[in-house]
Amino acid sequence: MRVEIIAVGTELLLGEIANTDAQDISQGLAELGFSTLYHTTVGDNPDRLRDTLKTALSRVDVIITTGGLGPTYDDLTKEVCAEIFGTTLALDEPSLERIKTRFRGFGRVMTKNNEKQAYLPVGCTVFQNDWGTAPGCAISRDGKHLIMLPGPPRECRPLFRTYAMPYLAALDGGAIHSDWIRLYGIGESAMEDRLRGLMQNAVNPSIAPYAKEGECLVRVTSRADTPERAEEQNRPFVRQVTDALSEYVYGVNVDSLEEVAVSHLRERGLTLSCAESCTGGLLAKRITDIPGASAVFPGGVCAYANEIKIRILGVRPQTLAENGAVSAETAREMAIGVKNLFNTSVGVGITGIAGPGSDDTQKPVGLVYIAVATQDGVSVTEHTFSGDRRRVRLSSALAALDNIRRL
Amino acid sequence: MRVEIIAVGTELLLGEIANTDAQDISQGLAELGFSTLYHTTVGDNPDRLRDTLKTALSRVDVIITTGGLGPTYDDLTKEVCAEIFGTTLALDEPSLERIKTRFRGFGRVMTKNNEKQAYLPVGCTVFQNDWGTAPGCAISRDGKHLIMLPGPPRECRPLFRTYAMPYLAALDGGAIHSDWIRLYGIGESAMEDRLRGLMQNAVNPSIAPYAKEGECLVRVTSRADTPERAEEQNRPFVRQVTDALSEYVYGVNVDSLEEVAVSHLRERGLTLSCAESCTGGLLAKRITDIPGASAVFPGGVCAYANEIKIRILGVRPQTLAENGAVSAETAREMAIGVKNLFNTSVGVGITGIAGPGSDDTQKPVGLVYIAVATQDGVSVTEHTFSGDRRRVRLSSALAALDNIRRL
Repeated sequence: MRVEIIAVGTELLLGEIANTDAQDISQGLAELGFSTLYHTTVGDNPDRLRDTLKTALSRVDVIITTGGLGPTYDDLTKEVCAEIFGTTLALDEPSLERIKTRFRGFGRVMTKNNEKQAYLPVGCTVFQNDWGTAPGCAISRDGKHLIMLPGPPRECRPLFRTYAMPYLAALDGGAIHSDWIRLYGIGESAMEDRLRGLMQNAVNPSIAPYAKEGECLVRVTSRADTPERAEEQNRPFVRQVTDALSEYVYGVNVDSLEEVAVSHLRERGLTLSCAESCTGGLLAKRITDIPGASAVFPGGVCAYANEIKIRILGVRPQTLAENGAVSAETAREMAIGVKNLFNTSVGVGITGIAGPGSDDTQKPVGLVYIAVATQDGVSVTEHTFSGDRRRVRLSSALAALDNIRRL
Repeated sequence: MRVEIIAVGTELLLGEIANTDAQDISQGLAELGFSTLYHTTVGDNPDRLRDTLKTALSRVDVIITTGGLGPTYDDLTKEVCAEIFGTTLALDEPSLERIKTRFRGFGRVMTKNNEKQAYLPVGCTVFQNDWGTAPGCAISRDGKHLIMLPGPPRECRPLFRTYAMPYLAALDGGAIHSDWIRLYGIGESAMEDRLRGLMQNAVNPSIAPYAKEGECLVRVTSRADTPERAEEQNRPFVRQVTDALSEYVYGVNVDSLEEVAVSHLRERGLTLSCAESCTGGLLAKRITDIPGASAVFPGGVCAYANEIKIRILGVRPQTLAENGAVSAETAREMAIGVKNLFNTSVGVGITGIAGPGSDDTQKPVGLVYIAVATQDGVSVTEHTFSGDRRRVRLSSALAALDNIRRL
């Protein structure tokens, strides 16, 4: 099936927001095996929207619109789409009830203009919106299909995933299931090298590698007649991918390295503290991004100044004088110091040169030492990260999380 | 002038990346007073690109393409654009020299396929690429203008700002200048209310308000015959906007609240330390995002657990028992404790409930206390932030930075 995604909204044309809906939807369509041929963005202008829809009908099988379903007068996607598909709008009572209930939930009374959102094309399939007020919907005519989704990404994305994707899979006579394998410590091209044989022979499931800042992921997607069969069909391929990349895989269908690190600590009954110099709080921030991190993480110290490393963490002045703040020895004493100070089972010390400048030594920007202290001793890894300050700090935090996960 | 932005790249249609180039360029066009009517994305497919260009020529005055200027066989934007504009490609020697020099700078030899990037439409204006290898260019014919820019955002954005925007301003017979006024502590609609009178009468300069996560900004843009006149013309309006919103303005043409907070501390010769509970390192992270923060920020403590608040920061057990960890009193003792521990002129304490759950009290998610201790005493502010965990943590860090800036 050929698809065009049409975003409706003047705010996109003014550059106030990026069109992340098109990205989210395109990813889902790729998982379904649909071909996205065009993304188009038009403003809240009925004539230009009408022309855009007509052009799309002439060149694709499925049109997905985002935006323009709201309560104000310039929200006109439904009106124009209904006209193009030769139908009209009518009040959908269940949708009106859902909107009223949602307002009551917020302790507010629904104003009259919000009723507009419950008017939908006659004969459409309604996609209820559990994340906002405006429902989505789908209409078909003469073998062409049109799906309308709300614009805000926090509504568009779950509504597309939950309701529109199964609808599209069924149109094409089937269901899909995706698994995500997440990797740390391997580059994109090395990952692709290892997967080449697997990818070449994989049609269903499809195997797609992605690079994300500082890490990589692989998506395995099966199509079958039921979601259960698709999941089952995926399983041996997920195993083959994780086997091929085993030393780098940190999780399947997990969100992040910090989530895995925190749950790993929790399962093993360990607690963690960290002493950060170049990352300046970023590691603590990422760990405490995870709800419930408090069970394993009493806290940490951001020790930016040498005097703090000495006075609070107990790094010896002699260590700093002989090796510099950015050294394996300093990282080691920071890790031991914070472990003792916070009385945790694991202590992490990070020191490095994030840039843009170096410290008063000749050490290169990107040089980072990460120490992990446990009751069994201390291990220190040396890294040379590339990129700007932000990238070096991010890479350092990820490397530390990976060291924690591997404990 | 009416504009269409055409992105060329199959990776966009697969959802691998979002089309942030369209957002960046649209913002610049809005500053120029140009009207962006459409964004279109097509894959690396010559027939569909040709059709898309023809459609664009029929409906706008200026076409801006992004992507497809690279060295590989599927980079075909220049070839198709030249054909549509009735010209051919020829080797541009200065561009070839620049590319060779760039390769030499990396200690590499330029491979033959990179020469392709130096072939440009005959008669075009070349935009040299100081941020990558593929140059951009502009061609005109019969009152229609076409600008081609490279796809990677780190190249597209500066090339557009540095070369394409002045080129477009000159097409329209003039120059532009924008100032950005940044605000914290006021909501979008309250800001718009205050600016309504000013905005209604403002054509040149134009005054545009924006909401950004947790803060607001106002852009003032003048058009004139020279950049200097445009800047001069902006000045009284910038003053009017800052006067109208004075208590919320934290800077004009600055990057962030943390940048202002750090330079404020530096100018006053103050040093800062922070004790973070609910923000868990986020405040320290944002401060140390700023290069040179070490001059004012020796470090901080992430005190997630109560035991750490007591043992390291010196919060009294009685304070925690009587008021709970999330209280003005605890924040106060955290601020004093960290100030003493790090021996700084300012100490900040943050404690709150970031969610998703509350602590073992009935205190609501979003309740946050921020204390600032100086030699003159301690001030504590109470906040009730809305949103999810990520949002509450962000709002808390911003509020703390604003308190620091206001010292």
